[in-house]
Order: sequence, then C-alpha cells, then structure tokens
Amino acid sequence: MEEPKLFDTTLRDGTQGENVSLTVEDKLKIAKKLDEYGIDYIEGGWPGSNPKDEEFFKKVQNISFKNSEIVAFSSTKRYGTKAEDDPNILKLVSSGAKIVTIFAKSWDFHVSQALGISLDDNLKLIEDTITFLKREGLEVFFDAEHFFDGFNHNQKYAIKTLEVAQNSGASIAVLCDTNGGQTPSKVKEAIETVKEKIKIPLGIHAHNDSGFAVANSLTAIEEGIEQIQGTVGGLGERCGNADLCIIIPNLKFKYGFKLPKINVEKTTSLYNYVTEIANLTPDNRKPYVGRSAFTHKGGVHVSAILKNPHTYEHISPEWVGNTRRILVSELSGKSNLKSKLEELGFDITQFSEEQFKKLTSKIKEYEHDGYQFEGADASLKLLVLREFFDYAPNFQVENFNILHYNFIEGTGTEAIVKLKINGETVHAVAEGDGPVNALDMALRKALQNFFPSLKNMKLIDYKVRVLDSTSGTAAKVRVLIETSDTDKTWTTVGVSTNIIQASWKALLDSVEYGLFVDNFSPVKEH
Amino acid sequence: MEEPKLFDTTLRDGTQGENVSLTVEDKLKIAKKLDEYGIDYIEGGWPGSNPKDEEFFKKVQNISFKNSEIVAFSSTKRYGTKAEDDPNILKLVSSGAKIVTIFAKSWDFHVSQALGISLDDNLKLIEDTITFLKREGLEVFFDAEHFFDGFNHNQKYAIKTLEVAQNSGASIAVLCDTNGGQTPSKVKEAIETVKEKIKIPLGIHAHNDSGFAVANSLTAIEEGIEQIQGTVGGLGERCGNADLCIIIPNLKFKYGFKLPKINVEKTTSLYNYVTEIANLTPDNRKPYVGRSAFTHKGGVHVSAILKNPHTYEHISPEWVGNTRRILVSELSGKSNLKSKLEELGFDITQFSEEQFKKLTSKIKEYEHDGYQFEGADASLKLLVLREFFDYAPNFQVENFNILHYNFIEGTGTEAIVKLKINGETVHAVAEGDGPVNALDMALRKALQNFFPSLKNMKLIDYKVRVLDSTSGTAAKVRVLIETSDTDKTWTTVGVSTNIIQASWKALLDSVEYGLFVDNFSPVKEH
Repeated sequence: MEEPKLFDTTLRDGTQGENVSLTVEDKLKIAKKLDEYGIDYIEGGWPGSNPKDEEFFKKVQNISFKNSEIVAFSSTKRYGTKAEDDPNILKLVSSGAKIVTIFAKSWDFHVSQALGISLDDNLKLIEDTITFLKREGLEVFFDAEHFFDGFNHNQKYAIKTLEVAQNSGASIAVLCDTNGGQTPSKVKEAIETVKEKIKIPLGIHAHNDSGFAVANSLTAIEEGIEQIQGTVGGLGERCGNADLCIIIPNLKFKYGFKLPKINVEKTTSLYNYVTEIANLTPDNRKPYVGRSAFTHKGGVHVSAILKNPHTYEHISPEWVGNTRRILVSELSGKSNLKSKLEELGFDITQFSEEQFKKLTSKIKEYEHDGYQFEGADASLKLLVLREFFDYAPNFQVENFNILHYNFIEGTGTEAIVKLKINGETVHAVAEGDGPVNALDMALRKALQNFFPSLKNMKLIDYKVRVLDSTSGTAAKVRVLIETSDTDKTWTTVGVSTNIIQASWKALLDSVEYGLFVDNFSPVKEH
Repeated sequence: MEEPKLFDTTLRDGTQGENVSLTVEDKLKIAKKLDEYGIDYIEGGWPGSNPKDEEFFKKVQNISFKNSEIVAFSSTKRYGTKAEDDPNILKLVSSGAKIVTIFAKSWDFHVSQALGISLDDNLKLIEDTITFLKREGLEVFFDAEHFFDGFNHNQKYAIKTLEVAQNSGASIAVLCDTNGGQTPSKVKEAIETVKEKIKIPLGIHAHNDSGFAVANSLTAIEEGIEQIQGTVGGLGERCGNADLCIIIPNLKFKYGFKLPKINVEKTTSLYNYVTEIANLTPDNRKPYVGRSAFTHKGGVHVSAILKNPHTYEHISPEWVGNTRRILVSELSGKSNLKSKLEELGFDITQFSEEQFKKLTSKIKEYEHDGYQFEGADASLKLLVLREFFDYAPNFQVENFNILHYNFIEGTGTEAIVKLKINGETVHAVAEGDGPVNALDMALRKALQNFFPSLKNMKLIDYKVRVLDSTSGTAAKVRVLIETSDTDKTWTTVGVSTNIIQASWKALLDSVEYGLFVDNFSPVKEH
C-alpha cells in the first residue's frame, strides 16, 4: 500500500470544539510543533471567516517549515456571485497558502435544506470555484462534506460532486463523515464503489460521533485511501475529529507503514503540548498518549508486567514517548533520572545508589503534591542542589505582603517584600497588574542594586493550571514561569492551594536560577 | 442476527482503572442503576481477591433485580491445589452468584511467562475449575484472556483452551483482547476461524489501547458473537474497556437491534450517574453521552441546524437522553445568537434587528478582550439583562480589599468586602486558601443573612486560563467559575490582567445569577 499523507486540521476543525480557543500566537506555535513532528499538511484556518485566521496566514509566511505545507480552508463561492468577486475566495488567494481546501455539499438533502439551491447549481458552485482557484495557480483539495450520508441517500449525486471536482482540477477528493454517523462497514462499502469511478486520490475526514473515527479512518486506509485528516487529541466539533495521536501509532505499529517523516516517539509530547497550549484537561485514558495508557493497577497485571512488560502492553510505551507507571509499587525508571541529571550538568558518578533512591522518592513526593518537573528543569536542578550540594542563594526572604484594593475610585495591587541580601535588610514595595506581577516588581526592586544582571532577565511565560478544579476556589494550582536572559531560557514551577504562594515559589526559583545556578559549579557536599 | 446479551464489568474491570475507587455502597448503587437501565449481566467483582468484593456479594443478595443477573469473577484454581480446596474458587461458590466468570490464559507466552507452568497443566486448570463449578450447580462463563494475542502466536493452543472450556461445561467462551492491541480486521479473521471449531456461543471483551474497543466489539457482533462485555464510560485498566454507553446506542441505531430490555434514552443519565459516583471528570466529547456530543459551534453548522437538526446530527440527542446546545463564539453568526437567546429564556421577537447587531458587536468586543461566552451562559445572560432590560441586583459592591501575608510564622490570605444590601452597609472579613477563596468566603458571609438560598449554592469548578502568557506575570487571565445549587449548574466568566479582578467578576456574576436571574422575568425596557 501507498504511504498515506497526514493532514492535520487542529487549527481549523479542532478550534470548532467546545472550549477550544487559540490565539494567533498559539496557532503559530502549534504549527511549528506539527512541522517538527512531521505532518504533511497543516490546515491553518478559514481566512475568509474571521480576522484571526487571516492574521495567522499573514504571520505563518515568516516561518520556514521542514516537513509541512500550509493549507487554507473555505467553502465554495457563494451562490449568485462570481468566484473572482467572492470575498471568501479572494481571501484564499491572498492568504499566501499554496494549497487550499474547498468544501462543498455532496448530500442532496443538504443542498436543498441548508443551501436552498438546485442540485445542478451546487455542482456549478464546485466547478466554478475550483476552476478559478486552479487558474490562480493553487493546488485544490476537495472536501466532500457529508459524503457518506450523501452516498447512502443519493449515491449517484454524491459521486457526481466528486466527478465535477476531479474534472475541475482538484488533486484529491476527501470523503467526509461530517456527522460522524458511519460504521466501518458502511465506509468500506462506499469507498469500494467510489474507487471504481474516481481516478484522483481519495482522502478521509472522519468525526467521532459514533466512536468510530479512528476505525473508519483506518478502514479507509485498508481500502487504499491516500490521505487521512484528523486533529491532535481528536479536538473538533461535537465529539471531535479522528485523533491523529491514535491513528499515527496505529499506522506505524499495527499496519506496518514506514511514515519516514513522522517522529512517532514524540506523539505523547505533541499531545501534551497541544493540550497545554489549548489549556484543556488531558485525557488520561487516551490510547497511546494518555498518562494512564501504560499504567498498571490490577495485581495480576502488575506481577506479570514485572516479569515481562509484553504480557500486558500491546507496544512499548517509549515507542510513542510515553512511560510505564505502576500504581501499587515504587518501581520507576532510575535510568530516566540518571540521564536527566546528566542533562542538567551533574556528574552522576558523584551520586551514590542511596542518593538516587532518596532523590527518586523526593521527586515522587513532590509529584504527589502536584508538582511536575517535566517542563520545569530549573526547579528540578534547584531541588537537587538544595538536597545534595552546598548550595544557598545570596539572599533570604524575610517576609512579604500583598495588598489588593478595589474602590470606586480605582483598583490596584501592591506587594511589599523584605529580604536579607548579603546580611543587609532590604525592604521594597511595588505596584503591579495583580499580585504576582506586583511581587515580581517588588522582588526586582529589592535585588536590582545588588545583582545588576537581573536587568537582562525577563519573564516570558506565565501559566496557571488548576489541578483539582472541582474543589472550586480552594483548588490546588500549579504555576509555571518561563524566564529568559540574553542567552538562555529556563522554566520553574510552584504548587499551592494559594495561587499567590504557588506563583511566589515559581518566581523565587526563577530568580535564583538566573542569578546563581549558572555560576555555581556543583561540588558535592553530603 | 441474534439479539446480543450485554455484560457490564464496571464494578470489576472498571475499578482497575486509575483513580477509580468504589465503596461497597457505590457498587450497590451502580448495580441498581444498571438493572434499571436493562443490562443482562453485572459482574460485581472478584470475591476471592478482596474483602470489599466479598461484602458486595453478600449485600447484593438483598436486592431484587428486574433485568440483571449478578456474576462473580475469578481466575482458575491455583496450580497444585484441588478446585474444591482453593479458597478463591470456594469464595465463588459461597458468593451467592448463580453465574461465575472464570478467566484463564489462552496465550502460550503468558502460560510460560506469567504462570510458569506447562501448556497442558494450564488446560488442566481450566478443566478442573469449570468441572468443579458445574458440579456445584453454577453456570460458568469462560473468559479466554489474551485470546487474540494467543491466536496470532499459537492458534492451535488458543483454540484448544476454548475447546477444553466447552467440553468442561462452560456456557459461553468470551474472547478477550486483554492488551487492547487488535485491529478490527484481526478480530474478524480470528472469530471466523473460531466459529468453525467452537459450538457454544461466543462473547467479546475488548480493551481500548489502540482506540478500537468499540469497533472491535461491533465487528464481533457482525461476525455473530452473542455477548458484549464492557463498562460504563469505558472505565478500566490503562485506556479502559469497551464503552457500553457508545456500544449500546450503536447496536440500536446503527445495527438495528431491538434491545427490548434496554432503556437507551437513559444512556446519558447512566453515564453521568456512574461518573458522579466514581468522582471522575466527565468526558465532554464522549460520543452520544458527552456534554458536547450535540453541541454546535461553527457558524455554518449552526445556521443549518436551525433549519433542520438532521443536517449536523447523526441521531437526535433525545434518543440517548442528551440535549442539543448552541455555542456563541467568534466562529458563529447571528443565527447562533438568536437560538442562544431563546435557549436562555428570552423571547427573541422582543429584540429589534438593531439590538441584535448591537449585542453581536458587544459580544465581539468582549471576546476581543479575552472573554469567552461559549462555556459561560450565565455571564452572557447577565450581559443581555444589563444591556437591554430593567435589571439590577439587590446589592452593590462598595469596595473590597485583599491582604496576603507571608511571614516565617505562617502564611495567610484575608479578604474584606463592603456591600450595600437593600440600602444597608454590610462589612465582612474572611480568611481563605488564596485571594479568590477568601473573597468567596467574605462575600458569602456578607450576603448569607439576606439571601438564605445562598447556602445551597456551591462552587464546583474553578478554571484559570492565562491568555497572552508571553506577557509573563502581567498577562491577561480568564477565569471560569461553575456553580451549582440543588437543581441546576451555571458558569460565569471574568477577564483582567489582574487575576483577583478577573476572579472577582466571575464570582460576582455567579452569585448574582444564582440569587436573582432565575426569579427575574425579563421584561424589555429599552
């Protein structure tokens, strides 16, 4: 079988999911990540539908991609206008994308009910739109919306729409299960018929309303379809789209495709990245990439896993960048920890076996409290320094206070910090946008004269995740702060039920790391 | 095709999922609910493995079930003991269950690796265990663990285990994809071979590690299998088991089975009930039963849905007891807004075209500022009331203050609020876990005596999203607060660069909505 092409629509169909809202910056970051992962096509949005997507296409032109091509999406032209006068279509042309996806109705019921035009007029919309775009030098992918419903209802017409697209110059016809209502057998049957009549390559775009999005996509692959559309984590309208984080490992490990461009071992990291940027709760039970996907709990399972992991794992977790977890015992990757310490610049021959054990259990304790060091190397390095080395920063915090007032005359937040720096007491106050910003300002004011390099340090990212959101406003929160100076970037973490305390911990770690850790050569003490 | 039997293992395999922990009372409640729903078999647990399951079987005998039979689970007897002396097996007999499931290895690799016995000895375990239980008058279901892996690896032996079970008196042979690694084509192929050799009915028990649990179960049905095992919401070890909340609607609406005992219109309620009892976060995107399963966001979708819901819904939400929802977002048009207003209880004939325009641009303004109303209906309703109706709450905020202190002796946050309630000034102070929790406490303290219904209102979810995280600690944040009282749940939103102000807005909206909006009959003013 032909190697399939992978088409990601997280930035377009994905954002139609409830609670999914991405800024232009978010979309650009995700596009870069998809390119690194090795996706063939990235559908960036519908430039004619909103100014945000228009801006995305403008900005994305400044990025050079290794693996991915950017695709712009639109409906066919509006009935009653010429393609060359339709603002929607013109925005496709001016988007800068070299490939465009045009979606059109292929279900007769939709033509009459949603568009309210004749079946022939709909065919004309398809023909005119594609012909115009081809003339403008663009490659056109044709999305046959509701293809399978159309096929079940008026097979001849559904296939006619594909023929018109083919004859107008579309390079691929994507069969969409827009409502997600198809079973794998229905998909198989329809594709077999279509393949007899349509000569351009076919694609599949499946939704998950019946729980078959992944199965339908892979059934289509068995039937020789050449492009799979989906989203990271299955984000999308209603129950979402086919999940590329499940489809890709299946293609590789169950169907034997090579997928030479795909970094399949980064699938878990891709999923976590997009989930984090979209600020969604990760699905722990998600196949391949969920936190529990290789987590063993039942007694029978755990005892067998310790003899041979293959007994209760269909693939090795590291193939998709995930990790094995065992809920009842304390057995966890010492080798992970060792390689991490080396990465952080420690000489691991300096550590005894007992110290590895102590550190492992310390990390587990922190993680149990809600910490996560995966994205916060700087805090992890500080933890190791504080635990095993003769390390102390050149300042201590005596206390701090926050005052927030909200009067009719105005609103404001002030922070007061009292530090001991080189034995000297320094007291500083500053205003800020909220308590964390005020603390940041006050801390800088107090330290500035003693540590002039602080001037080059800038907080570049601040993230808050509510951990047990069901506890309402008393919930535990995890704060991540990313800081950079002239030549590097580092991330720190803090956890507390009090968002001020959590932020303060991350903030202090950030400043400590920036001021001391780079110059500190770790000499083991105890 | 034969009507399939439905076998629920939420109470056994479901509890092997991470974070799933059910008390005996929880299990009894769920069993009653499953019976009402119309499930044929309820696997209650493994009485030999823990005292909790033993107690369940004792107590469940006091319940009379309309539709369900209770099943007890166990492995075969231990190697080297007689069945009649094996405590595990004896607890099955004394459990009071009339049907027992016995699981045994059918993958040769597992026999040698996990059990460490000979292949023949394993067959003898199966024979002895089933023969003994049949003699005790019990019906025996045979779970062939890892059947498909066994079939791929040593087909002859895997089938041999089924034959031994059949000849020893098992009434059904359940083919288990224990590791969840199979594709639908592999399942189909295996069942076709098994059907030629085994004469007792077959069942399927699928796990979701490759995302195929539902598809594999229904492929098995197409191949004439007679029992499907699964769990409510797909709870279970690792990625979970086949989800009965998806399988059952599929059987009914896609495969044309009658399922005469099943109350399919209670599927959503069953899912929510079990999720609630297990204290798990519901999966909003879950097919059929998720909160977003029939939720429409994209403008093209919404305008078509309003003409005919069939255009973007594969079934009617009420068939499974779910509801249609329409979201308002930047992706949506005027039709979203109109239907949203109707959903919120407004009479849209009261609004002029100009007012629609004004409201649309107001919402876009708010969204540009970082608001998002798609998950915050209550704040949207308040916005409309404030804009177009003679609405004002019965209290006003004069001012509030936050004090946060961090001394060596301890850390704490206090909030002081000053309100005007029915003309009277009320001043209250409270401590809390962080500024938002303290504000929540102080606000409640101030309002409690005037509005006793506040007692029933509880914050059930608190979410923080940093919008432009690259602005560091001065970034804009969006806070979502979900509140419930005895009969409903509502969500409110607040945005500010100051997290205290953002939370305060969402908090105030939440309280206002709960206290006033339900009793307020919207009479248009201007």
